[in-house]
Amino acid sequence: MSSSPIQRIGDSVRWADVVIHAGVARWVEVAGDRTQDVRSQVSQVLAQIDDTLPQISSSREHLLQILIYLSDLNDIHILNELWDAWVPRGHAPVRACVQAGMGHDCLVEMIITAAVSQ
Amino acid sequence: MSSSPIQRIGDSVRWADVVIHAGVARWVEVAGDRTQDVRSQVSQVLAQIDDTLPQISSSREHLLQILIYLSDLNDIHILNELWDAWVPRGHAPVRACVQAGMGHDCLVEMIITAAVSQ
Amino acid sequence: MSSSPIQRIGDSVRWADVVIHAGVARWVEVAGDRTQDVRSQVSQVLAQIDDTLPQISSSREHLLQILIYLSDLNDIHILNELWDAWVPRGHAPVRACVQAGMGHDCLVEMIITAAVSQ
Repeated sequence: MSSSPIQRIGDSVRWADVVIHAGVARWVEVAGDRTQDVRSQVSQVLAQIDDTLPQISSSREHLLQILIYLSDLNDIHILNELWDAWVPRGHAPVRACVQAGMGHDCLVEMIITAAVSQ
Repeated sequence: MSSSPIQRIGDSVRWADVVIHAGVARWVEVAGDRTQDVRSQVSQVLAQIDDTLPQISSSREHLLQILIYLSDLNDIHILNELWDAWVPRGHAPVRACVQAGMGHDCLVEMIITAAVSQ
Repeated sequence: MSSSPIQRIGDSVRWADVVIHAGVARWVEVAGDRTQDVRSQVSQVLAQIDDTLPQISSSREHLLQILIYLSDLNDIHILNELWDAWVPRGHAPVRACVQAGMGHDCLVEMIITAAVSQ
């Protein structure tokens, strides 16, 4: 028996920045600077995804699913405005967005699944 | 390097209705008519899953995981009643169900992962 | 057309204990004894994961992603203390943790994705 190799990126003890297995990458993003407002935090998270994608032989066109937590669902209009400008036409991932409690100052968190080249 | 092909269903700018990759389909369902009560919304969501499955060469017996958000966890008894009658014996998926904040009038949301024929 | 075989563990009508497909296992854990406090419940859930892993030809080093729900995010320090001692160095999974409403007495729930040998 053998399993597909697992690639882990990041050096945190607590979690991997990205885990890649069988052509699928999974990772979680929160804004690096959480002193900023929700518009900035959403922009940061989307930019961080953009930073990660080329490192894992993926791209915005290879996103499969993004699950989004907002600390205040009233912010969804800001999320949608930035999201709609960011997601590539014809290549949108599946998306769910709900309100959940997050750590202090964390206004948005995204759980990303993307296809990668093998 | 190559990645498995990605099939996307739906024509929304914001999200795909279904994304299929490497034999796995991922999608999200909320009730089409959210003016109805939770019993109707759960029934609608399960029926919408039934509508999607044959379009992607899948079936209720191929469900892998369903993550459920309820706007009021007191509704879980209604969910369970309808769920138990719907899920095929011996082929139940993994399931988690928590309470989370959703958009106005949205009482239930399901995130579905299913195996598809390739 | 053919799909990868699906292996289901467990005999509940409502959900599978574990579903394995295409080298990936998915399952959900809540503490078996939910009369206990959060420290006990987190310990139980991690021990239950340890019990499941060898049954599915997997190990702590093969964890891909764990999504965690806490009923009270103030408990995250207890979670982190137990988690950090449990997760194998250099093999941490991706992790997200948010506060969500769960059934009575349920203080923590984890949704696990792991690679398995095929």
